[in-house]
Formats: sequence, C-alpha cells, structure tokens
Amino acid sequence: MLVQFSIVPLDKGVSVGNEVAKVLQIIDNSGLPYKLNPMGTVVEGKWDEVMALIRKCHEETVNSSERVLTSIAIDDRKGMQDRIEGKIKSLEKRLNKSLRK
Amino acid sequence: MLVQFSIVPLDKGVSVGNEVAKVLQIIDNSGLPYKLNPMGTVVEGKWDEVMALIRKCHEETVNSSERVLTSIAIDDRKGMQDRIEGKIKSLEKRLNKSLRK
Amino acid sequence: MLVQFSIVPLDKGVSVGNEVAKVLQIIDNSGLPYKLNPMGTVVEGKWDEVMALIRKCHEETVNSSERVLTSIAIDDRKGMQDRIEGKIKSLEKRLNKSLRK
Amino acid sequence: MLVQFSIVPLDKGVSVGNEVAKVLQIIDNSGLPYKLNPMGTVVEGKWDEVMALIRKCHEETVNSSERVLTSIAIDDRKGMQDRIEGKIKSLEKRLNKSLRK
Repeated sequence: MLVQFSIVPLDKGVSVGNEVAKVLQIIDNSGLPYKLNPMGTVVEGKWDEVMALIRKCHEETVNSSERVLTSIAIDDRKGMQDRIEGKIKSLEKRLNKSLRK
Repeated sequence: MLVQFSIVPLDKGVSVGNEVAKVLQIIDNSGLPYKLNPMGTVVEGKWDEVMALIRKCHEETVNSSERVLTSIAIDDRKGMQDRIEGKIKSLEKRLNKSLRK
Repeated sequence: MLVQFSIVPLDKGVSVGNEVAKVLQIIDNSGLPYKLNPMGTVVEGKWDEVMALIRKCHEETVNSSERVLTSIAIDDRKGMQDRIEGKIKSLEKRLNKSLRK
Repeated sequence: MLVQFSIVPLDKGVSVGNEVAKVLQIIDNSGLPYKLNPMGTVVEGKWDEVMALIRKCHEETVNSSERVLTSIAIDDRKGMQDRIEGKIKSLEKRLNKSLRK
C-alpha cells in the first residue's frame, strides 16, 4: 500500500526543521521505498512495515515534544506494485506529457 | 492519544453505508472510548490499541473491496487523559457557552 | 456539502485553546449548521459559504501566528441535504442501535 | 502558502485515472507552481489563487460524479517564499545528503 504521512511537534515554534530532519533520517535508513514532497513523505510497503516506520518516527518526535500531530493517508489497492513510481507515470501517459514532480 | 479515522472503499459506488456500518460495529465492540461524527470516528487510547483497531477496520473493508482509502489524524499530548470529552468541555468553559456537538 | 476542518498555530506552544476558542466563536456566529468534535469541526453548506467561513477562521489564526496549519476534508454528494444529522442517523438505522457521538 | 490537495470520485470504481488526469491538466494550465506526488499535488500561491484552482478541479470532478471527496492541507508561514522548492532543500542541507523525491 501507498502511505503519505507527516509529523509536526506543537511546542517547537515556527521552525520544525530539526525534528523533521530526524524523521527523514529514520525514513531514509528504513530501506522502504519513499518519496519526500513539500508537505510529507510517501512510503510504499505492507501495513506492518509502514506502520512500524511511522510509529518509530512519531515516537522520535514525541521524545522531544509535549504534543505531536501526525497525519496518515493510506491508498490500499489490490494487486498493484511499485505504485510509488507507477501512479505518476500512468498519469503522464494518459496526458501524453511530462508533469512537474 | 486521540485519533480520528475514516475508511472509504472506492468500488462500492456512491453509497458506502454498508461498509461503514460494519466498521462502526467493530469500533463499538472494541471497548475503546469513541465518538462518531459525520466525517469520521474519534477514538482514544494507546498507539497499540488504536492502531490494532484501525487495522481491523481497514482489513474488514479490504475484504470486500479492491481499493480502500483510509485517513488517520493523531493528536498525541503527554500527561492528558479523557481528552475525548475534555477538549470540548475546555473550549466551552473558555467561551462560557454551550457549543453544538 | 459536508466539510470538516481544523486550524492549528505552530508557535503558541502545547496549548492552543485560546486560538481554537476564537475560531469556534466565529463558527458559532456564522449561522451555518456545525458540529464540533474532539479533532475538528464539521460544517454543512455550499462551497462559497463554507470556504468563506474557513478563510475567516484561518485568517483570525494567522493574525496572531507566524505559521498556521489548516486541514480541510470535503464530502460532496449530489442531491442530499441535512447530512450533518443524516449520516449518523442512517448508520444507526442500519445497525439498529444507538452509537456514541 | 503551500497547499496539498487530492480529489477522488466515489462512483468511478477502482481506477480513477481518467478523472485525476483531467484535474492535472487544469493544474498544469493554471500557471501556479506545483509538484505532483503519488498521493496528491502540492501548489504554492495566495489563498484566492489556490482556492480558485482547487474549486475548479473539484467542480470538474463533480461534473461527472455523484460523490466527490476532496482533501486539502494548508501550511501558511509568514515571510517565506518558494517553499515548494525550499523546504526539501533545507532538509537536505540539515542532513547534508540528498533525499529521494
């Protein structure tokens, strides 16, 4: 399944780059396919793999914050693989043009 | 932590009441404190409890659907309990009036 | 259409009750049907009505914050009215039991 | 402000690529900076510009569907520009490495 998530601490002020960088390091080390975008990170994997990763990232942020907001969006489609690359390619094929990504 | 979630199958057409009703039955049986609203359900509990429930609900929907979209929003604040009732009460106290809920 | 939204300032620390209370006062004064839940507020109305309200609430929070996160979820179903009450009633009818809300 | 959004019709079955392609064509024609990711599209602009675009996309989908779900996440930070490129660059600088995007 494809899963986008983002994690925000509420008590670190306007800039949360330090906390987000720690989370990205965990994601990058996880071995799961991922793509960072300006509003979150998309990962692809099975429920157990993905949720274990998100929990690790959430707990890393909770370790240094009193309040953490985490958003998760799951798109679970049977019988499809490599959707982290395939969804955008399929759209570009339909439109017969390259899109910004 | 407080967690809102909603689960939608994409291949059941406009009305997804049958699928949502099955999910609500699982939530109601779970024993976790919950509150249903017109756009999702809020539950309160620890990560393991809440995520096990959401997984059960997601998999129930996956059993009868080819594609399922699940959204999860977590508000994890240290040292607070019974926030499923307390957050709204606190707002009503601040405003010194009853709000629609 | 039914729309849930929530608005969070990032530079007010752990407790954002003051900011949320101001937003709730605006919603309560708007005249639109609404229901507050522990993770956000659901309103019902047309695109213009609802988005004007959300913008007013977002800007109220921006006035006193350097960074604001706003989430909006829209469920737009043709030919249905009073869904803010009707969706839950319909679920309770299907299950033939009262749910917590 | 940075805004991610996604639009899904509920009555088109498992594959919604046709509807999403129409929306991407509208976004690509809008002239606003955007980045497509596997779970949505991030655009950058002022409230009026961004919400007019999202409304146009939502209504395009409503034209051919009986029920449409639209999700919007706003990150509104004062005094920052070109965050659609800058947020990721800033993270890579902090970590002193290139991330997948």
